[in-house]
Amino acid sequence: MTERLAEAVNELVVANRILAHEGVVDAFGHVSMRHPENPSRFLLSRSRAPELVVADDIRAFGFDGEPIEDRGERLYGERPIHGSIYAARPDVMAVVHSHSFEVIPFGIADLRLRPVVHVCAPIGADIPVWDIRDKFGPTNLLVLTNEQGQDLARCLGTGRVALMRGHGSVAAAGSLREAVMTAIYLQVNARLQLQLVGCGPINALTPEEIALCTERQFGPLALRKAWDYWVARCGYQGS
Amino acid sequence: MTERLAEAVNELVVANRILAHEGVVDAFGHVSMRHPENPSRFLLSRSRAPELVVADDIRAFGFDGEPIEDRGERLYGERPIHGSIYAARPDVMAVVHSHSFEVIPFGIADLRLRPVVHVCAPIGADIPVWDIRDKFGPTNLLVLTNEQGQDLARCLGTGRVALMRGHGSVAAAGSLREAVMTAIYLQVNARLQLQLVGCGPINALTPEEIALCTERQFGPLALRKAWDYWVARCGYQGS
Amino acid sequence: MTERLAEAVNELVVANRILAHEGVVDAFGHVSMRHPENPSRFLLSRSRAPELVVADDIRAFGFDGEPIEDRGERLYGERPIHGSIYAARPDVMAVVHSHSFEVIPFGIADLRLRPVVHVCAPIGADIPVWDIRDKFGPTNLLVLTNEQGQDLARCLGTGRVALMRGHGSVAAAGSLREAVMTAIYLQVNARLQLQLVGCGPINALTPEEIALCTERQFGPLALRKAWDYWVARCGYQGS
Amino acid sequence: MTERLAEAVNELVVANRILAHEGVVDAFGHVSMRHPENPSRFLLSRSRAPELVVADDIRAFGFDGEPIEDRGERLYGERPIHGSIYAARPDVMAVVHSHSFEVIPFGIADLRLRPVVHVCAPIGADIPVWDIRDKFGPTNLLVLTNEQGQDLARCLGTGRVALMRGHGSVAAAGSLREAVMTAIYLQVNARLQLQLVGCGPINALTPEEIALCTERQFGPLALRKAWDYWVARCGYQGS
Repeated sequence: MTERLAEAVNELVVANRILAHEGVVDAFGHVSMRHPENPSRFLLSRSRAPELVVADDIRAFGFDGEPIEDRGERLYGERPIHGSIYAARPDVMAVVHSHSFEVIPFGIADLRLRPVVHVCAPIGADIPVWDIRDKFGPTNLLVLTNEQGQDLARCLGTGRVALMRGHGSVAAAGSLREAVMTAIYLQVNARLQLQLVGCGPINALTPEEIALCTERQFGPLALRKAWDYWVARCGYQGS
Repeated sequence: MTERLAEAVNELVVANRILAHEGVVDAFGHVSMRHPENPSRFLLSRSRAPELVVADDIRAFGFDGEPIEDRGERLYGERPIHGSIYAARPDVMAVVHSHSFEVIPFGIADLRLRPVVHVCAPIGADIPVWDIRDKFGPTNLLVLTNEQGQDLARCLGTGRVALMRGHGSVAAAGSLREAVMTAIYLQVNARLQLQLVGCGPINALTPEEIALCTERQFGPLALRKAWDYWVARCGYQGS
Repeated sequence: MTERLAEAVNELVVANRILAHEGVVDAFGHVSMRHPENPSRFLLSRSRAPELVVADDIRAFGFDGEPIEDRGERLYGERPIHGSIYAARPDVMAVVHSHSFEVIPFGIADLRLRPVVHVCAPIGADIPVWDIRDKFGPTNLLVLTNEQGQDLARCLGTGRVALMRGHGSVAAAGSLREAVMTAIYLQVNARLQLQLVGCGPINALTPEEIALCTERQFGPLALRKAWDYWVARCGYQGS
Repeated sequence: MTERLAEAVNELVVANRILAHEGVVDAFGHVSMRHPENPSRFLLSRSRAPELVVADDIRAFGFDGEPIEDRGERLYGERPIHGSIYAARPDVMAVVHSHSFEVIPFGIADLRLRPVVHVCAPIGADIPVWDIRDKFGPTNLLVLTNEQGQDLARCLGTGRVALMRGHGSVAAAGSLREAVMTAIYLQVNARLQLQLVGCGPINALTPEEIALCTERQFGPLALRKAWDYWVARCGYQGS
């Protein structure tokens, strides 16, 4: 393994631990990154709760969701989420799929999620809700086929976040740290809005503000400050 | 003690710790499993807060709630909950009784609890509310007689979950891990719905989706992943 | 110091730590007990946050709130809460005064606090709200004079709990463990009811159920089980 | 460095840790104090998450937000918040800027924040909401110029707290400990009021009560008791 790949793997393990510590994922959910040396592959853990993932668990996959090396081991069933988004979006370098319990309400009720505070701007102005039932009828709600993954990727469009009815959400961004930040502040924004149910109209960020705030949040200063903080909190720096 | 029994006892202790750590039980509440070598008995701790239970606390009981061996020690008063459900439901291998503070509201207000996200599907489409007052008048609300336990078991019917007005709930399932998962995600689903009070209609899972999601959640992949995660969180693996 | 007194002091220190760990008190709030060898005195820490109290901080006071031995040190300003209740209520053996953030809403809004689940029955069917402004006009809301303390004690009447508008609450009971249990489940009941704001009528416990549930909760089985649990959680057993 | 300055720096580091531990700040937010030996300067960390700040990170700045010594290192972009308030308010000795997630709702919805319990009185009777958009149009919401800082300081007026729409809040007070207490109880008061959304009118503190309660809260007894408690909780006493 090259040093570059080893660093990427390590960063991906840290991302798993951060998302678990911040409550974005529990036993379920996963985070992937595009392979740093081969843009038509992505890195993802084999099937384990994110809090328990170590470097030895990380595997490489093709966009079809198949592992590059078949070891006959248990893999996440929802690999098509990741493969389909990387295939559809060359700009996306990392994908988080989570069941954050504060985000789920916005996929199942008549509530519109939109950024209300500057740090949450990266979630974007228009957040679509994908319902697997629309095209695939009754299922176990999991994205288990590439056709389902491609339909979800279409719904995500050019944005960073899509909600999944009765299931969770995806956050896709231009770097691993951006995707982690988007997933964490997606949860924060959801919590903020839930506190305001029944309070009347909300003075949300405007599209112009969203663009300017996102630029700032994804700048190296904010991204590094936040990453250092999350690493310290989860107590795991990798090897 | 056979190795098989020792393993069951150990798993039951771990279940106690998991439920305490996840906040499903506090000082009160208990979890039992059917005896692995004698299906007409069940295993349950003597009277202790679940967080403090160790292997030496586990005792065997008959369906009448009486201990197989009388040691003159303090026992949970609500043994009839467990005995009555095992007697009525040969398919049930484990029972959790809890006072989860997020579930209780659904037993005392005009709110219908039903699965809104795939991981919570095992709680089932129709969750009855049992009110001890209906048949037994004013009591301390505890299920202290076999007659009361049998009435609760009748209310549970063929389902996995029943709420108990002003008291708590029971979760009964085909294995210890399934029962623990059901109890934990019962709490999660309750929290999700409480966030949505006053938001209008909820787009809940359909009965077909509930069946398909439950099959997946109770499959070995999801069950083991979740169990490993909960064990890591509670920091207790048993002996 | 007799062994009996040393045990009482130790138990009182543990009570301080439990209440802090369970979030019933923060930097402020205090718990006292009637002196085990002199029923016209009570034991209370000198002025410290409950989480930091040790045995050396415990002092004896008369019902007038004056320390038996004047050491010229900082004392809680609100000693009149404790002295006045012990003077008015020979049956009371311990008093908790807290600012639990979940209980405060019931003293400042049109919300009636009443037991909705069996473990919370000890808070009683009728919980009065005391407003210092009614008799004493604008103040800093603290109970700093014996006249104020006596007015609060009158409002408490023969009950176990009184709310204090814009300030907090008191819980008084027949033993230290009962008072701690009452204060903790007062907070639990408040949280339960706050989850149900806007849900319509609540199916609360009836007066008969409240009496029967309280008898059970204050029985040695429940009281000891809960105490052992809270001690384990706060990680402090005293000396 | 004089002993006096070293003590101030140490206290400022502890304040950073307390605010992080109490959840008032996350990766973002900052706390400053007026320089103890030069009232036209203030002390603030270089750019780091407050939870990670150590004594070596503290720098001195002029009211224009420029560092006294230019080391070419990363600094908080929002130094104008601090400099502008110190310039406008000779009575202010410390400033906290935070994004507390419980306070933000009051800057974006039709909800009036005001003290409802004695410990929260220092936040003041009238809490203005500053909207950067009013004067500066679409921005990234950060206070990055002295003109913006001065506009915020004008909005703060003679008070201790101002909310910032879609961004957070500032708390300014006559000592570092007072500012920290104000910021923490600002969050508590917000949480209390959010629990009561939809409950009808609130019986808040009167202006006279606010004045009397603030005097007590800022007295040495309460301030020291609370500080000792927060220090113990965050587990950091400095060097």
